[in-house]
Amino acid sequence: MHAMARETTRHGSGQADGLRYRRLAEALRAGMRVGTFPAGSRLPSLRALAAGHGVGMNTAIAAYRALAAEGLVLALPRSGFRAVAPRADPAPRTPEALEAAAPVDMGEFLARSRRLHELPGVANLAVAVPPADLLPLRDLRRAHLRILRAHGVPWDGYEAVGGCAELRLAIAQRLARAGAAVASDEVVVTNGAQEGLHLALSATSAPGACVAVESPAYPGLIQAIGALGLTCVEIPSSSTTGMSVEALRLALDDHRISAVLCTATYSNPAGGSIPAPARLELISLVRERGIALIDDDTYGDCAHDGARPRPLLADDRSGTVVHVGSFSKSLSPALRLGFLCAGRWRARAEAAKIAMNIGTAALPQLAVAGLLSSGDYDRHLQRAAPLLRERMGRCAEAVLRGFPAGTRVSRPQGGMVLWVELPAGVDAELLCQDGARARIAIAPGTLFSPRRRYRRHVRLCGARWDARIAEAIAHLGRLAAHQRARRR
Amino acid sequence: MHAMARETTRHGSGQADGLRYRRLAEALRAGMRVGTFPAGSRLPSLRALAAGHGVGMNTAIAAYRALAAEGLVLALPRSGFRAVAPRADPAPRTPEALEAAAPVDMGEFLARSRRLHELPGVANLAVAVPPADLLPLRDLRRAHLRILRAHGVPWDGYEAVGGCAELRLAIAQRLARAGAAVASDEVVVTNGAQEGLHLALSATSAPGACVAVESPAYPGLIQAIGALGLTCVEIPSSSTTGMSVEALRLALDDHRISAVLCTATYSNPAGGSIPAPARLELISLVRERGIALIDDDTYGDCAHDGARPRPLLADDRSGTVVHVGSFSKSLSPALRLGFLCAGRWRARAEAAKIAMNIGTAALPQLAVAGLLSSGDYDRHLQRAAPLLRERMGRCAEAVLRGFPAGTRVSRPQGGMVLWVELPAGVDAELLCQDGARARIAIAPGTLFSPRRRYRRHVRLCGARWDARIAEAIAHLGRLAAHQRARRR
Repeated sequence: MHAMARETTRHGSGQADGLRYRRLAEALRAGMRVGTFPAGSRLPSLRALAAGHGVGMNTAIAAYRALAAEGLVLALPRSGFRAVAPRADPAPRTPEALEAAAPVDMGEFLARSRRLHELPGVANLAVAVPPADLLPLRDLRRAHLRILRAHGVPWDGYEAVGGCAELRLAIAQRLARAGAAVASDEVVVTNGAQEGLHLALSATSAPGACVAVESPAYPGLIQAIGALGLTCVEIPSSSTTGMSVEALRLALDDHRISAVLCTATYSNPAGGSIPAPARLELISLVRERGIALIDDDTYGDCAHDGARPRPLLADDRSGTVVHVGSFSKSLSPALRLGFLCAGRWRARAEAAKIAMNIGTAALPQLAVAGLLSSGDYDRHLQRAAPLLRERMGRCAEAVLRGFPAGTRVSRPQGGMVLWVELPAGVDAELLCQDGARARIAIAPGTLFSPRRRYRRHVRLCGARWDARIAEAIAHLGRLAAHQRARRR
Repeated sequence: MHAMARETTRHGSGQADGLRYRRLAEALRAGMRVGTFPAGSRLPSLRALAAGHGVGMNTAIAAYRALAAEGLVLALPRSGFRAVAPRADPAPRTPEALEAAAPVDMGEFLARSRRLHELPGVANLAVAVPPADLLPLRDLRRAHLRILRAHGVPWDGYEAVGGCAELRLAIAQRLARAGAAVASDEVVVTNGAQEGLHLALSATSAPGACVAVESPAYPGLIQAIGALGLTCVEIPSSSTTGMSVEALRLALDDHRISAVLCTATYSNPAGGSIPAPARLELISLVRERGIALIDDDTYGDCAHDGARPRPLLADDRSGTVVHVGSFSKSLSPALRLGFLCAGRWRARAEAAKIAMNIGTAALPQLAVAGLLSSGDYDRHLQRAAPLLRERMGRCAEAVLRGFPAGTRVSRPQGGMVLWVELPAGVDAELLCQDGARARIAIAPGTLFSPRRRYRRHVRLCGARWDARIAEAIAHLGRLAAHQRARRR
């Protein structure tokens, strides 16, 4: 839906073209249903498809994009398209009862991954860290050197609570280009998106309050909910269409909720994005209650086609959406740079930032401001997008090929994680342990829910692809098959 | 007491010498009492004093140091010694009833100072920011360049929650030299001391708990107490001997306290340091209750004589002391670098750090680690100490000279702030407003208490000295005198 909308705009194609690609997509869907294209099989090339159905290339592209968005087609750069089995939604379908956020031990998880990481030959699929070759490290170095040579180390930093003016302006300009009108002094620079989420929660929810959080969710978010003494209710999030607005509506009726936490674009770990019409419905639903809609946009700049989707914030004129952004996935996690636009909660978010650490280190801010305003950042995103798409595709394909039958994998259109549903009889935590013994680090599904759901899911980082990763995924597949065989 | 202890150690002087300087000090005290040396008058030079009493130079030095520690003598580099009127203690003498921390609006204060700061010709005495000439900005620049040239921008940063190994080691080594044995993995690098205090509070005190905090206190601490939903009881802190252990004992008997917050060395704003015997008593008192003793050591590296006092942590073997350090006053506030050693609360502090922002920006950490291990940092402290001492002395003298009779000023042996008690009839907030109109920024005493006490105190940053500052202090004095005259 999302990809389609962009496609139609880009090619200026009208209703007629729209009908044509829909018909073509339906034909392919039917072929998959009746076994013409079984799961895993190669689909016709774009050229063959266009010729065979007497349509243009754009229509063929649009049809495959639509099917990819539905999770029925896997696009593998340079190796064409493959059919994928339709899959059940891994998320719980009804909101759960109120519960205190369980102490997800992300620290233990990070420490364990780190210990593994330090061993030679480890395949680290556990942590969503972009590898060096997806980062503009030379540009970053140059940007830092430029600041140091021109101005020395910035030193007079206490008074800029919201961040350096240069970076706030550059961020506001980028948001404006993505459709969201934000003044630069509404941007608060944070130490990564984690701090943005922590501040958003502090600003909107008092200790003891209950928040609605998509499920599965980013573990750092669950950790912050627990640390701030909040309770939460889980709202199912689909691997295609993101958080369920219908489930949220029920939860808002049943519970007194102070804030809703979602990832409208490329959710981590499930991978879905909320479609455009549902976004408007979501914003209006939350706005009516007078509470906050916190959108974790950490992966918004990691679109696999290089075209930044419109953020949730762009559809809000009421100050309901609290937008949390990050440079950790697109520039470097070690910069610890993210930002927050807190809408109606701005004053409280700024006060919380002062109480937390006053401000953010200045030099990295100035360097990133330089990258953003020079255009280097955008050029980097354009370069990185096809690489990321290709690697994610290869990892997903390797999972489908190597894991036991019944395994399902998400096919996000952005971001760098794959959400893998294991077949019955395979336990995610056991698989993680078996993997660790073979020097393969992965993240168990239980990490992504305050109730430790998703015992049959694992999250894999799909941002690297080499022989070691290929071998690791194949080995995980064998471990899963072995586990299932033992259990029978 | 403190200065004396250091003096005796340094010169290896024994009991005999100790007796001699005490007798000499008593003679000077008597002279001041009977009017031989009225407040503000010049005292004999060291040489004249030694010759006149037939003692050695060291004895004369020790006598003046003892009187300076008592607040009776002001040592002004290159202009000798001056007698000072004995002063009443500005802090409340008994602990106050339990109260929720009031929302100190530090954000508004910072914003106001910033607006003032941007005007041309403003004298900013409000914020405790070291001026550029007290910071090793060239060393810092070189240290950054060295990292960038040798390794590029560090990028793989998620997994080092406690901070970069190089910096943690360098900090642990410095603490060891100051007498505190801490393993490097017990050090958690933070975004400035403010974040260290926030983490220390989160780790030791659940929302709704009550903490004991010295009064007057650093406003950021009061802000953090409020932001975390804690209540607090104020413990008087003297401008010479720091937080009162006796008052704390009473408070611990009367209230259920989860943590005690003090600044054992160079308290901000009052300026006192807790003397050695009281430190031991304080630690054992808090240890007995099984609660945390959080020591904000932000100014520990800013001793005016360049000799770093032993931190409270050095006298604790029980994990009771939570030590919070900073590089903001000695290197640059814009680095946003501080650290935390959380003793028995270490695991909880690390979990709180992950929930807050995972980790701290890597490049500034590596640069500071380089400065620390090369010895550049220590050389810088030695260079800066006499400059800071001289400026603080000149500012204090200017206050005594320019403000109305009855004005009293603290004489800290470290740090960069002066705590000024105004005579009856002068209101600190009015003086701040009058000052702002004359483009002079100062901090009102009310900012330093959750109950907005200290309406007759102001805090001045004494780290700068030039004609504009001299004129500003003189002008403040006239404004105070004018205010008092109007009120009569």
